[in-house]
Amino acid sequence: MAEFSIIDTYFNRHTSTSVDLGVGDDSAVLTPPPQQQLVICADTLVAGRHFPLDTNPHAIGWKSVAVNLSDIAAMGAKPHSILLALSLPQIDHDWLKGFSQGLYDCCDQFGVRLIGGDTTQSPHLTISVTALGWIDQGQAITRAGAQVGDLICVSGTVGDAAFGLQHRGHELQKRLDYPTPRCELGQHLKGLANSMIDVSDGLAQDLGHILAASKVGAELYLEKLPLSPALQQLPDQQKWHYALAGGDDYELCFTISPDHYKILKQQTPHVNITMIGTINNTNTLSLLHHHDSVVLDLNGYQHFA
Amino acid sequence: MAEFSIIDTYFNRHTSTSVDLGVGDDSAVLTPPPQQQLVICADTLVAGRHFPLDTNPHAIGWKSVAVNLSDIAAMGAKPHSILLALSLPQIDHDWLKGFSQGLYDCCDQFGVRLIGGDTTQSPHLTISVTALGWIDQGQAITRAGAQVGDLICVSGTVGDAAFGLQHRGHELQKRLDYPTPRCELGQHLKGLANSMIDVSDGLAQDLGHILAASKVGAELYLEKLPLSPALQQLPDQQKWHYALAGGDDYELCFTISPDHYKILKQQTPHVNITMIGTINNTNTLSLLHHHDSVVLDLNGYQHFA
Repeated sequence: MAEFSIIDTYFNRHTSTSVDLGVGDDSAVLTPPPQQQLVICADTLVAGRHFPLDTNPHAIGWKSVAVNLSDIAAMGAKPHSILLALSLPQIDHDWLKGFSQGLYDCCDQFGVRLIGGDTTQSPHLTISVTALGWIDQGQAITRAGAQVGDLICVSGTVGDAAFGLQHRGHELQKRLDYPTPRCELGQHLKGLANSMIDVSDGLAQDLGHILAASKVGAELYLEKLPLSPALQQLPDQQKWHYALAGGDDYELCFTISPDHYKILKQQTPHVNITMIGTINNTNTLSLLHHHDSVVLDLNGYQHFA
Repeated sequence: MAEFSIIDTYFNRHTSTSVDLGVGDDSAVLTPPPQQQLVICADTLVAGRHFPLDTNPHAIGWKSVAVNLSDIAAMGAKPHSILLALSLPQIDHDWLKGFSQGLYDCCDQFGVRLIGGDTTQSPHLTISVTALGWIDQGQAITRAGAQVGDLICVSGTVGDAAFGLQHRGHELQKRLDYPTPRCELGQHLKGLANSMIDVSDGLAQDLGHILAASKVGAELYLEKLPLSPALQQLPDQQKWHYALAGGDDYELCFTISPDHYKILKQQTPHVNITMIGTINNTNTLSLLHHHDSVVLDLNGYQHFA
């Protein structure tokens, strides 16, 4: 089966999202909305590395979109469309059916359209997705805006995906397989948060990127880390390790002034947001447990271990 | 070495191309030029499939950019920037140095900037590049615009890359390793050509996409095919096979009205453009050699053979 048949069969669905020219030409063509900036990112999933080899194809399809929409959300942008570069060892129609369904399910949930890409044969399953979004001119929330005195917040719960990876079959495995990009919250934080990142490599490492980019330090309050019940029951060191060094949660970590934090909590009473620390001028990340300093050996996910 | 160090070491060069936020955040941010549409594509190179395993890393870096700029050129658009998703078996600094140099050499030649992407570990070397370009509103040249009576033209010479693949060490190997995206010609054809595609899978197959998208047919004049001296010396069947079924040339194939063709030739006397056929209303592709019908068994490059 040639590339063209795979695309026609599995990846040529039309949706209503505005695109001038989608799948099926040399390139896709889009008209930028007025006064908007383009936000764009690309992330790759490699079988056996970013997901266990026996992960169901529907989850792989979902996750390859979700991790990219998470990067769009982390800028405060509205996701618009994706391109898919799919490298497959062979044509397995059951696999392709499940994968494309998962990919479209995630696209549909977040109003995103597949507009291009290609399929190639490769000895190893590799999925690269490029995601595009739009944001009001000058409103993107970068990693570099954290201010001394900002509160550090995180959405949802952290450590679930890493726990799910080590406890396959546990209900938290769905947090690993079907991460939820925080698209709505990300957009809501426009004009409120000073800096933001998504938690893909572990909270400590990802927060570290904010600190480095913003040239600031932080205190993190371990007792405030938002944990799922399964993690709450673990010994301290173990739960902190999951929460701080476990990747793949795709929650948003952001810093916000105390005044904007109050506004945010009033505006979004039903969104799970936890204040877990404060930005200071120390240039280091200090971990505190009820005011006591804690030293942990944390290594976030290393792409080349 | 973590992903971040690889990016900082090899892929964090700054250039003057206008980007609001480049490598180093969750996403890149670009301000669209006024009255322009975004043109975007993604193409993957898999080691051993899209280039021989012993290809030098500089050529791999060049080619992964070039094949994508070719897709931007085939819309008539001006290339602007790329994202790189690089999946590597291991960290080989010599390889990365050569690869990144080749990538930047191609970017520099065409005024393009690397604005994002990621690096991941994978058992198999796979390179996905997303390319972005801009084009005046409504001016993109698609595959669907061919008109009955149009002349079919191709830039440069065809079949060289396929010949180079089968004759490693021959000077034509550079056409395989270092394809030249026809960026300037592509933009020049805006407002002149009615349809366009780049020749990546073989001229017959790629022209076939224009015919299918435009719902027309064509006559192709085999004696007019532009061939390099090495191919001109081959038996007819063999040279036609290289020219029509050989992929990877990255020349532009376009259709144009006879009036516009005259204008084009006047405006670009020094650009190598050859008229090789005409569009008709038959819905088939007929091959003619000095008016005699010729039947060839042509299979373009099949991604899943």
